[in-house]
Amino acid sequence: MKADVYFAAAEVDPQSLAEKAVVVIDVLRATTTIVEALACGARSILPTTSAEEAVRLAASLGREDTLLCGERKGAQIEGFDLGNSPDEFTSERVMGKRLVMTTTNGTVAFSRAHEAERILACAFTNLGAVADAVRREETLVVLCAGRQGRFSLEDAVCAGHLLLRLGAGPEGEVELNDAGRAVVALAEAITPNPAFLANTDGGTALADIGLEGDLEACGQLDRHEIVPEIRDQALTVKEG
Amino acid sequence: MKADVYFAAAEVDPQSLAEKAVVVIDVLRATTTIVEALACGARSILPTTSAEEAVRLAASLGREDTLLCGERKGAQIEGFDLGNSPDEFTSERVMGKRLVMTTTNGTVAFSRAHEAERILACAFTNLGAVADAVRREETLVVLCAGRQGRFSLEDAVCAGHLLLRLGAGPEGEVELNDAGRAVVALAEAITPNPAFLANTDGGTALADIGLEGDLEACGQLDRHEIVPEIRDQALTVKEG
Repeated sequence: MKADVYFAAAEVDPQSLAEKAVVVIDVLRATTTIVEALACGARSILPTTSAEEAVRLAASLGREDTLLCGERKGAQIEGFDLGNSPDEFTSERVMGKRLVMTTTNGTVAFSRAHEAERILACAFTNLGAVADAVRREETLVVLCAGRQGRFSLEDAVCAGHLLLRLGAGPEGEVELNDAGRAVVALAEAITPNPAFLANTDGGTALADIGLEGDLEACGQLDRHEIVPEIRDQALTVKEG
Repeated sequence: MKADVYFAAAEVDPQSLAEKAVVVIDVLRATTTIVEALACGARSILPTTSAEEAVRLAASLGREDTLLCGERKGAQIEGFDLGNSPDEFTSERVMGKRLVMTTTNGTVAFSRAHEAERILACAFTNLGAVADAVRREETLVVLCAGRQGRFSLEDAVCAGHLLLRLGAGPEGEVELNDAGRAVVALAEAITPNPAFLANTDGGTALADIGLEGDLEACGQLDRHEIVPEIRDQALTVKEG
């Protein structure tokens, strides 16, 4: 397998993703929340890049079974039903619902990947399931959402652990780019858990707005056997 | 000390660098070549972002003691006196000369840093000297040149070794951003040498155009006690 890692959505040329499988990672918190919502029975999640687009889309879908979700500067957007904390997305709130979601980094990364053949959402919580889902791809792109166009450590470490599960490493058979080599070395050095997340820029920013409780859910490895994948512009899980 | 690392010039807001000390790193090859040229007696090096600007500047300075240096796609620019291979910059060629230099990534990073209070050039070859020169700074920015706006492993590992020399690490007292935490972990795992460079994207690209010989010079740690620093828009070394 050949695997190219990108540290921010803006780094990647959308055209270069055509016919490829792209794994989008935004550990804090979009992809963790997406996994949680689908695990709790949400029917589908539609990522959008702006709050305005989210509102328009939710209105056109019909508000009775659609929830508006997302954040700006980490906090729930005014007038929206839910923010971007994984723990908000309980079965009681999301079962059977369509979710329209907009976040600062994560949903932008999904938009950037729109030319791809497959687009999957990965977090620490569904790492093993995603690894199994892409194991046979010849070419894989791992798109870290990053923070405001810059590197984020938790996304890089998650990318590295995904690549380790796919057999990357000193003796491995995964052909990597420089960012791929870096994340594998980082994953070999760093064990993901909530304490690690607390010591990242993203974790610190969440604590600053009182959301450090989110790190507990975001730092759990393989909590769900869920592979959110875009089908007809919405993230869904295959009926099993 | 507080140290922020950036993986590509475009990541950094130039205004944010005002009154800060910025270390620019482009191991393959601009900063290695700059160190080599000044070690071999070049009087000064003027980084420019375009070949046209380089030609104009050299003409205005007077061509008799000015050399035009630089590359596009790795190869010497047509009509220029020198390319961007450290070994070309011998005493015979550069002693007492002014060098006007333009490269794809490195000189662009210097331009991006122009608002900074101090701007220094760092490579593996002068790592210790740069560490000593910035040890007392309260705030340090390490600007990796990267490759075409993307992460390059050799610049990241060089940044990490610089931060280790400055006392970063698990018990260290350097306050880091996410990219800083990552490069320190990478430097703890990776020893710089020519073999490491050969296994990076930049090293592979040089081998593809027959310049793998450059890696020998670029991979040598602490070869020179030279600290190139911008004074009056030119990189020079302090008279000792």
